[in-house]
Parts: sequence; structure tokens; C-alpha cells
Amino acid sequence: MDRINVGLIGFGTVGTGLVRILQEKAKLLEERLGFSIVLKRIADLDVTKDRGIKVNPAILSTKASDVIEDPEIAIVVELIGGLEPARAFILKAIGKGKHIVTANKALLAVHGPEIFKAADENGVDIGFEGSVGGGIPIIRSLKEGLVANKIKVIFGILNGTSNYILSEMTHQGLKFQEVLKKAQEMGYAEADPTLDIEGIDTAHKLSILLSLAYGVQVRMEDIYTEGISAVAPMDVEYAKELGYHIKLLAIAKSDGGPIEARVHPTLLPADHLLSTVSGPFNAIFVKGDAVGSTLFYGAGAGMMPTASAVVSDLVDLCRNIRLGVSRRVPLLSYQPAHLREGEIKNIHDITSTYYLRFTVVDRPGVLSRISGILGDLDISIASVIQKGRRIEKAVTIYMVTHEAREKNMQKALQVIDRLPAIVDKTVLLRIEDPSDFGE
Amino acid sequence: MDRINVGLIGFGTVGTGLVRILQEKAKLLEERLGFSIVLKRIADLDVTKDRGIKVNPAILSTKASDVIEDPEIAIVVELIGGLEPARAFILKAIGKGKHIVTANKALLAVHGPEIFKAADENGVDIGFEGSVGGGIPIIRSLKEGLVANKIKVIFGILNGTSNYILSEMTHQGLKFQEVLKKAQEMGYAEADPTLDIEGIDTAHKLSILLSLAYGVQVRMEDIYTEGISAVAPMDVEYAKELGYHIKLLAIAKSDGGPIEARVHPTLLPADHLLSTVSGPFNAIFVKGDAVGSTLFYGAGAGMMPTASAVVSDLVDLCRNIRLGVSRRVPLLSYQPAHLREGEIKNIHDITSTYYLRFTVVDRPGVLSRISGILGDLDISIASVIQKGRRIEKAVTIYMVTHEAREKNMQKALQVIDRLPAIVDKTVLLRIEDPSDFGE
Repeated sequence: MDRINVGLIGFGTVGTGLVRILQEKAKLLEERLGFSIVLKRIADLDVTKDRGIKVNPAILSTKASDVIEDPEIAIVVELIGGLEPARAFILKAIGKGKHIVTANKALLAVHGPEIFKAADENGVDIGFEGSVGGGIPIIRSLKEGLVANKIKVIFGILNGTSNYILSEMTHQGLKFQEVLKKAQEMGYAEADPTLDIEGIDTAHKLSILLSLAYGVQVRMEDIYTEGISAVAPMDVEYAKELGYHIKLLAIAKSDGGPIEARVHPTLLPADHLLSTVSGPFNAIFVKGDAVGSTLFYGAGAGMMPTASAVVSDLVDLCRNIRLGVSRRVPLLSYQPAHLREGEIKNIHDITSTYYLRFTVVDRPGVLSRISGILGDLDISIASVIQKGRRIEKAVTIYMVTHEAREKNMQKALQVIDRLPAIVDKTVLLRIEDPSDFGE
Repeated sequence: MDRINVGLIGFGTVGTGLVRILQEKAKLLEERLGFSIVLKRIADLDVTKDRGIKVNPAILSTKASDVIEDPEIAIVVELIGGLEPARAFILKAIGKGKHIVTANKALLAVHGPEIFKAADENGVDIGFEGSVGGGIPIIRSLKEGLVANKIKVIFGILNGTSNYILSEMTHQGLKFQEVLKKAQEMGYAEADPTLDIEGIDTAHKLSILLSLAYGVQVRMEDIYTEGISAVAPMDVEYAKELGYHIKLLAIAKSDGGPIEARVHPTLLPADHLLSTVSGPFNAIFVKGDAVGSTLFYGAGAGMMPTASAVVSDLVDLCRNIRLGVSRRVPLLSYQPAHLREGEIKNIHDITSTYYLRFTVVDRPGVLSRISGILGDLDISIASVIQKGRRIEKAVTIYMVTHEAREKNMQKALQVIDRLPAIVDKTVLLRIEDPSDFGE
């Protein structure tokens, strides 16, 4: 066997990158593999578009079934994205005994259990390195490199669009809407940026990391998800004064009990490695009980970085096929019998330190009233500062708390926000310090 | 087959970490692997020492041959370090058809060709994730995660001792000897720190990374190696003023021709991710042509981090054994037929930008003389500043050059250092900017 045939469904940006790598790196891959990977068929609704690369027209088809039904194709690469028809195509291909490579995080987050079960039943493998962190080999690192570790904490900057926007807000002092517009013009943000800026894409990726780290299959609705659209320049600014940068983080924590899993804008110490990750980059901080603190950094998206990850999966599966083995590494890092439904801690049950911004009328006794309410709920204040000109009649109080229970914090804010002296809804942001988990 | 037997030679720090992981994580590993890894035999000259863990005395032996000759042991883990008898033990074990796991970078750097050849001839695998970067899965990432990439550049902080010393010099303003003493007291540096501070350990690791990235086997003497013992506080200080931190870097570069491979203290932009890697940590910046810039960070040494890497190799080999396959991934990332002797660029043939510190008598015309000599050799000056009090009769001139050829620079310094106005040997440090290779 000196060649293995693969098929591609979805000749878009990443698909084009994949074809480019398979063409340009054919020799390199052969020198490494000892055999060649042949792209036998490409299915896409648009087979006429000029993608800047030469492809034999005979391998192009508008029908996914031409890939899925081809008995000579051993691996189907799905790169159309979205839930349907990607789900249907993948399930059909699995039914035909094809191995799958996909970068479709939304699909795996939402329909993962169904897809992985089908793969188990059919004894096929699924590679999804491209689904999280673009070209960063984080999936492989969790499944193999850190296999000896109980994962204590994951902090992930997993969405390049959000990170670009927050970086620009931090370093250029711009407003969210201004940067979003600029990001759209530069191609860093979609016309409809909802998935990115509302944290949904980050939550999809977190759910994948959770299954690899803990062997749990998590429902999206169990991951508390808050985006960055409400982050104001004054929060960015004051966070900086306090020595923090604001990042949209995917957070996972476990000490053996129910797992914490949440996505929200987070104040991080400005001098931590994660805070220095700027622009459209991704980084994943993973603390394992044996390995200690690790960080994986790189381009989180884009044609070639994601294609690099897709090819790494293809190579992996081809090596198995060539040796006549499959399921060498379990799909979700644990043997199927040891996967379980994820018990995710309700956001109300977490503890955190908090950043609060109150907008109040400048009247004696307001701060005392607020701190009284917080104190009654066991929330103690680490620092407080009042800013703003009296002439506007409203002043801003910035506050950082010590560790407190989220449940109490939410209760306190309910009470506080009903005070007559409160002008605007209070802004709450959570603070994390990765070095609390050891460097 | 519900268990695979492994044997350990070398019950030192990392060996103890390995035993701890295999004991404490037996359940986790079983849930992931679907079978168990049994440590059948441990050989060490000292079998009586209390290592803080319970081990069945019956599995302890003072003879390595009890591990190597045991027909039930499939994998031999070598953790004694050093060249001999590690080399002899490994070759003997390979001859017996055992797979090998080792963290011995010196051995692989010096005797790699012999060991890998023996492994090829006997069809066994060698895992060496622990040899570079402690628990950071950098070996796996280069061999598998980044398999689709031509590696343009590697910048590695690969020696925790040196990085700790340079970090303390940078942040505390201490002298090399002071920090070294402190590092020895804290256990960050050996009693004989030569391998670490003279860059030899870093060069060992670089040679391993070079083989994985480029399929070359490099002789140690071809890697230009310069340590940090000559780095003075005034260089650290002035580099900081210029916006740089000094790091001991392993550098590899390739654009297809002869490879650059060198180890030396390097000025890096202070705001680059690599510059923020402080203390005993390691980080490897890898730029691939598809994936772009990536960075891998973590503890570069220590009992548990290195043991984490060793277990990841054990797991990898056990998975192969269980499926009855071997040599799934070629040992050095390329098929043996495509390995070649490394053509390494002579240090004189590189180009770089340079930091220079001249100590001169304060006399008119000296700077003009120096810059004339540099100019004659096509070395142009980017910035220059003179410091020091005239009263001492000697002043310091700090200079940063534009890109120049090393050959010319060395020639220039030969001439300059013979000038009567030169009081001390001129200090030369090289400057690198990872962002020149794209972020």
C-alpha cells in the first residue's frame, strides 16, 4: 500500500489550505510517512470558483455522496462547517466505515455524543485537531502529551475575533463597536459576529476540551456563557490601572468534584503570559497535577494554520490505516465505557473574586449602603475607588472584592441595583489569577 | 492482554516521579488506555534509600540486567542519565527487542545515530519526550502536530537554570555569580553547573529538535555554543534600556539551504512572549510555514513534569504493543532513508544584528576609529551611546548594528580589540526578533 485515498467535503478557506498543503508538501509528507496521501475527490456546491490553486477538474463534484460512497476513499474530511448538512454527511460516512477528519467545533459541541457513538459502533476514528486553537496541537497534547495528568485548570483564549477586539480596546483605547467595525473590515470578524463575540464559539471549543480533560460530555446549556459586547472602555481602562487585562476566557476547573465550566470576560494579571497574547491569536493555559503549568500558543484560525491541524489528523489516521489498526487512542481520551455525563457546577455555586463598577448619584452614605449589603452576604472588599465629576451628579465606584460566592454576589447586586441611588445596572466582571494554581 | 510490563533503570528523581505517577494514576491510565501498565522491575545501585514512596522490595534490583534480560518486560525506561553506562544498557535492551523510553538528552545528542540505527535494525521504538522541555509535549508536537510544516525557525529557552539566572539578573539587578550561588542553594543549579550555564545542555536539546524538524543528524561540534557566564549586569541593564531581555536561546533556522544551529545569549524584544518566560521555565517558539508562529511553554525539568513526559511515551508505546504494531511514527520524524547528515552553516556565515560593548579610553577620535573599521566591513550602526565617567579614564560605548555578516563582525572586532584605545575585550551579543519571522 503506497498510497491512501482521502476525500474532502467543503472546498472553502480551510479546504483550499488543505489542498495546498497536500500539493505543496507531497514530498515532505512522503519522506515522513513512507507513503503518499492522495486527495481522490472534492465535493463542494461551487466547483467553478477560482481558488488560486490548480485541481484536476475530474476530482471535483457538487455531490457529497461522490466522496462518501466512494469505496476507495478511506478518510472523509468535512470542512463545510455548521450543523447541517455536516452532521448528516459525517454520520453517513461513518456508516460506510470511513474515518473522519473535521474542524467543526459547533457540530462536535452540539452533536458530539451522537457522532462519537456512531464512530464507536463502526470502529472508525475521528480527528478534530482543527476544531480548537487552529494549528495549535492542543487536542493531541491533552489526549497524549498530558495523558498522565489530572487536569486542574484550563484557561483558554480560544476566539481570535474576541481577543483581537479586546486587545485593540486595551492598547488603542477604542470602543467595542469601533473595533468590531475595524475587525470586520480586516476580515477578523464575520458580518454576523454573534458566535464569536457572545462567547458561543469559545463555549463550543471549551466543551471539546472538557471531554478530553475529564471524559465528560457536556450540554452547551450547562456552560455559563457571557460575551464581550458589554465590556466598556472604562472597564478596560480601570482594569489596566489595577494591573489587569480583560480577556474572553474559557475556564475549566476540577478538583475531583463537579467541574467548573464557564466562558466570560475575565480580568487577568497583566504580567501573566496569557495577558500578553494579543490580536487574533489563541493560547491555552493548562495546569496538570504532574506537569504543572503549561501554555500552548498560536494562530487560532485561518486557512493555513487550521489546514496544518487537519493534515496532522490525516497523517495520524493514515498511519493507523497503513498498519491495519484503528481506535489506537480513544476519541475522547477516555475509553468509551469511562465517558460520563458531565456534572457541571452551576455558576451560582462557584467562588471568585470580582470587579464591580457601580454608577451612583453622588450622595453621602451610598458607598456605606453598598458595602453594608455586600458585607451582609459575606462579600468583603479588597479595594474601592470613586471616580467621576460631581457636576454630572453621577459618579462611578470601582470595587474589587475578595473571594466570594457567586450566589451571594448575584443576590447582593439584585438588592443594590434596586437602590434609589443606583443610576445604571452594576457591571460585574470576574477575576482569575492563573498563578493561584501554581506557576 | 490486560497489562503490559515495563522496567525501569534509574530510581533517581525522575524515576521516583515515574513510579509515583504509575502508582497514583493507575486508575486514570486504565480508564484512558483500557489496560494497565505494570512496573515489573526497578534497577538502581541504591535499593535501600527512602524515596518517600512504597515499592514492593521484590521488584528492586541493583542489576540493570535484571530489567534488560527479563523476557516479560516489553519496555525499558532508562533514567540514569549521562553517557555510560546508559548507552550500553540501552543498546543491550534494544538488542533484546525491548522498546526504550529515555529522557537522556546528552546521550541522544552524542550517541543518537548509533542508538537510532540499532533501534531501526531491531524494529523497536524509542520515546524521548522527556529529553527536551521537561513536561512540554514538544517532541510529539514536532513529530505529529506540526507534521505538515516546513520549520522555518525554532527559538528555544531550553535550560531552566540559565533562564532562572538571567531572569534574576534582569529583574533583581544581581550579578551572575550571586545568582548562580542562590540557584545552587535553591536546587535550581547543580554543584557543577557547567553543562547548564555554558549552553551545552541547551545544545544537546537543540540537536534533538534539529533532527525532528529537518531530519538531520548533527554533530555537537557543529553547533556553535556560547554560555551565559560572561553576561555582565551592565549588558543586562543596557539591553533593558534598549527594550530587550537577554535569554540563552537555542536557535535553528532554515530556508531550505544549510541550517543555522546555534546556542548563545541573545537579546530579544522585551515585549515578545519568549521574553516573558521567567524563572526555571522553558519555552519553545516554533514557526512553521503553514501553522505560523506557535509557542510551547512549561516546566523544563523537575521530578513530576519530566515523569509526565516519560509516562506519555510509555502510554504511546503500550498502545502500539497492544495493537501489535511498532514504528508507527518514525523515530526522528522522517523515514530512516530520508535522514541525512546535517549541513550546518558555519557561525561565520550567518547574518545577525549585534549588540556591542566597547571599553575605551576617553580620547577624541576613538568612536570614529571604531565606526570606520566597522564601516569598512559593511557593518552599519543603528544606534550608539557612550556611558561612563571621564574620571575613570575608561568609558563604555554601547552599540547596536544593523544586519551584518558574522564573518565581518569577527574580523572587525579582531582589528578593534588591537587598538591602543581599547581597554577590555569587546563584548558581542546577538539580537533576534521572532516577529521578523511573522507573528
